[in-house]
Amino acid sequence: MIVAMQEGAEPEQIQRVIDRLVTMGFEVHRSTGERQTVLGAVGARADFDIRDVEVMPGVQEVHRISAPYKLAGKSFRPEGTVVRLKHGITLGASQVPVAAGPCSVESRDQLMRAAEAVSRAGAKLLRGGAFKPRSSPYSFQGLGEEALKLLREAGDKLGMAVVSEVMAISQIPLMSAYVDVLQVGARNMQNFDLLRELGKVRKPVLLKRGIAATLEELLLSAEYIMAGGNYEVILCERGIRTFETYTRNTLDISAIPIIHKLSHLPIVADPSHGTGRRDKVAPMARAAVAAGADGLLIEVHPDPDHALSDGAQSLYPEQFAKLMDEMRLIAPAVGRSVA
Amino acid sequence: MIVAMQEGAEPEQIQRVIDRLVTMGFEVHRSTGERQTVLGAVGARADFDIRDVEVMPGVQEVHRISAPYKLAGKSFRPEGTVVRLKHGITLGASQVPVAAGPCSVESRDQLMRAAEAVSRAGAKLLRGGAFKPRSSPYSFQGLGEEALKLLREAGDKLGMAVVSEVMAISQIPLMSAYVDVLQVGARNMQNFDLLRELGKVRKPVLLKRGIAATLEELLLSAEYIMAGGNYEVILCERGIRTFETYTRNTLDISAIPIIHKLSHLPIVADPSHGTGRRDKVAPMARAAVAAGADGLLIEVHPDPDHALSDGAQSLYPEQFAKLMDEMRLIAPAVGRSVA
Amino acid sequence: MIVAMQEGAEPEQIQRVIDRLVTMGFEVHRSTGERQTVLGAVGARADFDIRDVEVMPGVQEVHRISAPYKLAGKSFRPEGTVVRLKHGITLGASQVPVAAGPCSVESRDQLMRAAEAVSRAGAKLLRGGAFKPRSSPYSFQGLGEEALKLLREAGDKLGMAVVSEVMAISQIPLMSAYVDVLQVGARNMQNFDLLRELGKVRKPVLLKRGIAATLEELLLSAEYIMAGGNYEVILCERGIRTFETYTRNTLDISAIPIIHKLSHLPIVADPSHGTGRRDKVAPMARAAVAAGADGLLIEVHPDPDHALSDGAQSLYPEQFAKLMDEMRLIAPAVGRSVA
Amino acid sequence: MIVAMQEGAEPEQIQRVIDRLVTMGFEVHRSTGERQTVLGAVGARADFDIRDVEVMPGVQEVHRISAPYKLAGKSFRPEGTVVRLKHGITLGASQVPVAAGPCSVESRDQLMRAAEAVSRAGAKLLRGGAFKPRSSPYSFQGLGEEALKLLREAGDKLGMAVVSEVMAISQIPLMSAYVDVLQVGARNMQNFDLLRELGKVRKPVLLKRGIAATLEELLLSAEYIMAGGNYEVILCERGIRTFETYTRNTLDISAIPIIHKLSHLPIVADPSHGTGRRDKVAPMARAAVAAGADGLLIEVHPDPDHALSDGAQSLYPEQFAKLMDEMRLIAPAVGRSVA
Repeated sequence: MIVAMQEGAEPEQIQRVIDRLVTMGFEVHRSTGERQTVLGAVGARADFDIRDVEVMPGVQEVHRISAPYKLAGKSFRPEGTVVRLKHGITLGASQVPVAAGPCSVESRDQLMRAAEAVSRAGAKLLRGGAFKPRSSPYSFQGLGEEALKLLREAGDKLGMAVVSEVMAISQIPLMSAYVDVLQVGARNMQNFDLLRELGKVRKPVLLKRGIAATLEELLLSAEYIMAGGNYEVILCERGIRTFETYTRNTLDISAIPIIHKLSHLPIVADPSHGTGRRDKVAPMARAAVAAGADGLLIEVHPDPDHALSDGAQSLYPEQFAKLMDEMRLIAPAVGRSVA
Repeated sequence: MIVAMQEGAEPEQIQRVIDRLVTMGFEVHRSTGERQTVLGAVGARADFDIRDVEVMPGVQEVHRISAPYKLAGKSFRPEGTVVRLKHGITLGASQVPVAAGPCSVESRDQLMRAAEAVSRAGAKLLRGGAFKPRSSPYSFQGLGEEALKLLREAGDKLGMAVVSEVMAISQIPLMSAYVDVLQVGARNMQNFDLLRELGKVRKPVLLKRGIAATLEELLLSAEYIMAGGNYEVILCERGIRTFETYTRNTLDISAIPIIHKLSHLPIVADPSHGTGRRDKVAPMARAAVAAGADGLLIEVHPDPDHALSDGAQSLYPEQFAKLMDEMRLIAPAVGRSVA
Repeated sequence: MIVAMQEGAEPEQIQRVIDRLVTMGFEVHRSTGERQTVLGAVGARADFDIRDVEVMPGVQEVHRISAPYKLAGKSFRPEGTVVRLKHGITLGASQVPVAAGPCSVESRDQLMRAAEAVSRAGAKLLRGGAFKPRSSPYSFQGLGEEALKLLREAGDKLGMAVVSEVMAISQIPLMSAYVDVLQVGARNMQNFDLLRELGKVRKPVLLKRGIAATLEELLLSAEYIMAGGNYEVILCERGIRTFETYTRNTLDISAIPIIHKLSHLPIVADPSHGTGRRDKVAPMARAAVAAGADGLLIEVHPDPDHALSDGAQSLYPEQFAKLMDEMRLIAPAVGRSVA
Repeated sequence: MIVAMQEGAEPEQIQRVIDRLVTMGFEVHRSTGERQTVLGAVGARADFDIRDVEVMPGVQEVHRISAPYKLAGKSFRPEGTVVRLKHGITLGASQVPVAAGPCSVESRDQLMRAAEAVSRAGAKLLRGGAFKPRSSPYSFQGLGEEALKLLREAGDKLGMAVVSEVMAISQIPLMSAYVDVLQVGARNMQNFDLLRELGKVRKPVLLKRGIAATLEELLLSAEYIMAGGNYEVILCERGIRTFETYTRNTLDISAIPIIHKLSHLPIVADPSHGTGRRDKVAPMARAAVAAGADGLLIEVHPDPDHALSDGAQSLYPEQFAKLMDEMRLIAPAVGRSVA
C-alpha cells in the first residue's frame, strides 16, 4: 500500500498514519519529498480495507500495490491453466471448444434435437438450464433434475461434456452427479457463500462476470473458489451494463486480452447473453475468437420462435453451423483451432 | 406493445408479426402511415419478452407500453403506501425515520454503545448485520443468531424497531423471530427465489437497489415480493456504479423523486454504502432528506477506527448527532419531520 | 509516480524501467520486497503519460502520486476561493446565489418577463443563451448579440449579474463586453483551445462538467484556465451519463462534497440540465443546497409550453418562487443563506 | 410518437395532450384500452422534443417511433454506401483498408519512416495528427500546416490516401487542400457548427463516436453532415467510457454489427484509442475485422518509446506487420479482404 499525504500535512497526522499502518501489520517506508510525504507500506496481509487509511486526516490518496488476488494472478502459474474435460476437451490450450444448446431444457425432444444439431456442427460441450428462477412467478421455472438427466444422457450419447448453472449451495451435490462443469451465473458472481462451497468441489467451475463487475472483482471471485482448493476455474465474459441501450449489455471483448495478461485462467465468451439479440451473436462470437477467447458459450434452440426462454437470443441450428464454419476459419489466425 | 416496422417492410413480414402478436394473446391495431406501418398490441399479458418481436425480419423497433409492474406502480395506490412499525414509527408519511447502527454487530458492548448513541440522537430504527459473508474467507463473518438477540434486546430496551439483512431463504424464519424489517441487500435484488419467499412473510421488507439496476428493475423486484401478498415493501437507493471512481458508487439522489412519481412505495436512502466514505455521508444524507426521502439508513459505530467491517464509512456518534440536527432543520422545507 | 513491478520481473526489466524514469527526469527510490520490487519516482514534472511506463515489460501497475493539477487543488488555497461579482454577489462564501432565466433569449418581452419573475423570487444572476447551435439545422439558433444586449439591459435594470455561454474563441471579445460570467458548456469542457483563451480573460468562468468527465478531468480543465492567469473559475455539476435511462443524465450530487475536499474552487449545480425534466428540478435543487452547493443554475421560462428550446426542463415562474422559498429554509442547515 | 397516458388519466388531461400534439403538427390516433389510453401521433416533423409531452399531466411515457435520422438510416440506401478514395481504395465494399501512422506528425524523418513501414505492411491510408491541442499547455502542439504537407508528400510517394483530424471550422480550407479524408474527433462529435460546415465540403468525413455517445447520437451527427449535402460519411468506433478502469475506454465491438443494421454508412474501428494500450491493440483490431468492420485506424510509430504523444498506444512497425498478417487471415471468414 502506498499512502500519499496531502501537501502541508502536519507531522502528527503523518505519525498517526504510520502508527495505524504498523498496527495493521505493515512495515512502513517513509519518503519525504519537497512537497509531500509518501509512505510505502509493505507486508504479507492481503485482507485490509484501504479506505480505513483513506479517511484519516492529512491523507491525500492511497493505492493498493499488490493485486488483492494471488492464486488467480498470472504469476501463480505463468504457463497458464489448462482445464481438461472428458473426451479430450481442453480449455486454455490450442483448442477453442464451443458449448452450445438451449437456454432451458424444455423436453427430451427439444434437448435431443438441439444436442444433435450442435454436435453435428462441432460443439464439444452441451449447455442447458435446469433451474430457471424467472422475473415472473408465472414463467417456466425449469425442469430441475429431469433436465440434468437429459443433459447427461445427450452428452454421453454424443460424446460431449455437459455444463449447467448451479444457483444455490443446496443444488451442488445433485448437479455434481450429472454435469462436467458447474456454471455460476452473473448474478451469483459475488455470492460468496456459494463460491466458498464450490471451492470444496472437485469439478471445474465456469464463473460468469457480473454485469457491473470489474475484471479485478471477477478475479477476486475466482480467488475465493481457488482458496478452497478448486483451481479449475474458467472465467466468462457475458456483457457489462453501459449507457448504450441498443443491446441489453455491451459484450466487453477487451476483457479477453486483459484477463490473459492478468491471470493464468482460461476465459470464454458468451455472446448470446452478451448481446441479447440473435442477429448480433455471430459477429460477436467471431470477434471473441479473433481476440483470443479460450472457448464460447452459445445458445441454440431447434425452434427459437417457440422457446420457453430467451428465444430472441437463440440461434437457429443452421445459423450455428454457419457460425462454426466462420470461427474455424478465424481461429488459425491466432494459432488456435475450433474443432 | 408498439411495433414499428421498418420503412419498406414487406407485407408478408408485417403479416408474420401480426400473426405472432395474436399468438402471444394480443389484440392488434394496425396503422399504416406514409412511410411506415405501426402496430399497436393491446392485451392483458404482462409477461412476455419483447425481444421475440424485435428480432423478427422487417421490425425496426418495439416499445413496451404499460409498465411491466402493476402492484408496485403508482396507480395501484395513488395515495401512497405507509409502512407502520412498532412504537408508532411510519415510513411514507410525514415522519422521516432514521435507521442507524453498526455495519456488523460485533459484541454486546459495541452494539449497546452504538444503540444508545443513535437513539439519544434521535434514530428510530436500529440497524446491524448478523451474517456477513465477506470477500475474504478470513474476515469476520458476523455473530449470527447472537447478533439478532442483541439487536432485539437493544431495540426493546430503547424503543426502537430493528432492521437486519436476510441473505438466504433458510435464514427467514430465524430472522423473522427477531427483527421488524427484513433487509434485502443490493446483491440479492434479483435473487428471485429469495424474493418469492419474502412475499409469503408478513413483515416489511427493505429492498436495496442493485448497483447496476435500473429503477424499473428495482420496481420489478418489488413486484415479485408483492405478488406473493406482502405489500409492505420499502425501497432503498444505495448507489449505482458509474465511470466516476472517486467514490465507490454514485448515490443516485434523483431516484427519490423518480420513485415517488412511478410508485406508491416509500423510498429510503443509504448514504453510507452509497458513498463508502465517512466524510461524504453527511452531505448526501442531507441531500436525500431535501429531495424527499422517506427515511435514511446510516452506519454509526462507537469506535469506527476499530470496526470489524466498513469502519471507513461509519460515522462517529458525535458526527451522527450533528447530522441529525442538520436533517431536523431541512425536513420542514419539504413538509416532513426528522424526529 | 509509483511503479509496481510484476512478481518475477527480471533484473534487466527493472533496470530498464529505472533508466526510463531517470530519462523522464525523475529521481527513483527502489524498494525490494519479498515478492516484488516497487519503484518510487519523485520529481517536479507534472506532464507525463504514465502509460509509457505501464506498457513496459515486467511492469504490473503504475500509480500517479501527486494530483495532475496544482492550481486547482485544495492546497493551493486552503481557505477557499471566493468569486466576487457586481452588486455584492459572491460564490464560495456564505451566500448561495441562484442564477435563473430561460434556456434561450427569444425576445425582449420573453426575457424581461423571465428576468423580472426570477429577480422578484430572489435570483441574483440572470442566465440566458445567445448562441444555440442545435442538433437540427432547422431549429432556433439563438439571437446572438441581440440576446447579449437584452441580458445586459435586464441585468442592469434589476441589479443582477449576467451569465451566458461562450461557444467559440471568436465569441470571447463580444461576450466579454456584455456578460459578467462566461459559461463553458459540458461539450466544451475539453476544448483546450477555448480554455487557453479563457485563461487570458479577466472575467470569471463557469466551467460545466462533461457528461462523461471524471471530477479529476474537470479539475484538469479548470487548471488549464488557471494556468493562463485567470483564477476565477466556478465549477458546475450538470449530470453524468449512466445506465439509468429514466432521466437524461444522473445529477451527481456527491460531486459537491468531493470537489469541496479536492479543490478550493466554488461548485454550483445545474438541476435543469442534470435531470432534463421540470418535475425533477426542485427536489434536485434542494438536494444540491443541502449538500453544500455554492450556487445554482436553474432554467425558468415565463411560458415553458411555448419555449423555443428546453421547455420541458424549464420551471414556471411560480414553481421557481416556491423552490426559492424551500431553498431558503434549507440553506441555514449548512450555515449558508439563499437570498 | 406514441403517448401512453397513465391509468386513471382524466379526460381533460388526455384532451390537452391531443391538442398539444395537433399544435405540434401531428395527426393523432387514439386507442382506448381497458386500463389506459394510448395516443399515436403521426406526421412529417422530425424535429421535436418528446419531453414537451412527457412532462404533461397524466402522461405516463412517450416513445419516439421513427428514428430521428433519415439520411443516415438504412432505408435511405439499403444497398449500403461505398466511399471511394484515390488509388482504388474503397470503404464499405469487400476491401477492409487500414489507415495507419503516428499519432502526431513530428518530423519529416519520423513520418517517412512510419509511412514506409505501414505501406510495406499493407496499409492503404496514412494517418497523422497536424494540430494537437493537449491537456497541458507545455506539451507538443503539432506541426500544423507543415505536418499536412509531409502527409501529402508521403501519401503521394507511396500511393496512399491521407486522413487527418480537423478541429475547427477555420482549418477546413487548409486541410481540404492536403488530405483525402477529414477526421472529426470524439470530442467534436457534437460540435454542430463544425458538422454543418463539413456538410458543405466535398470530401469524405470520418466521424468518431464520442466516449459517452449512444449509437443513435452518432447517427444524428452523421445526419447533420449529410443534411448539408455531403453523403460521404465514415463512422468510427473508438471506445466508450464504462465503469471498467483497466483500459482507458471500452472498445464497443458490438457497435459494428449494430451500425450495419441501422445505417448504410461504413464503420471503421480505432483500437489504438479504444484501448489506450499497445498490448491490447492487436486483439481488438482482429476482433473488429471478425465482427465486420469496414476499415481500421491504427497508430504506428517508428520509435514509440520516444513518441511525442500517445507512444503507449502506438505499435512498433514489426507488431503492425504481424497484425496485418493476422487480419489478412481473418477477413475471408467474413467475405472480405485486408490488402
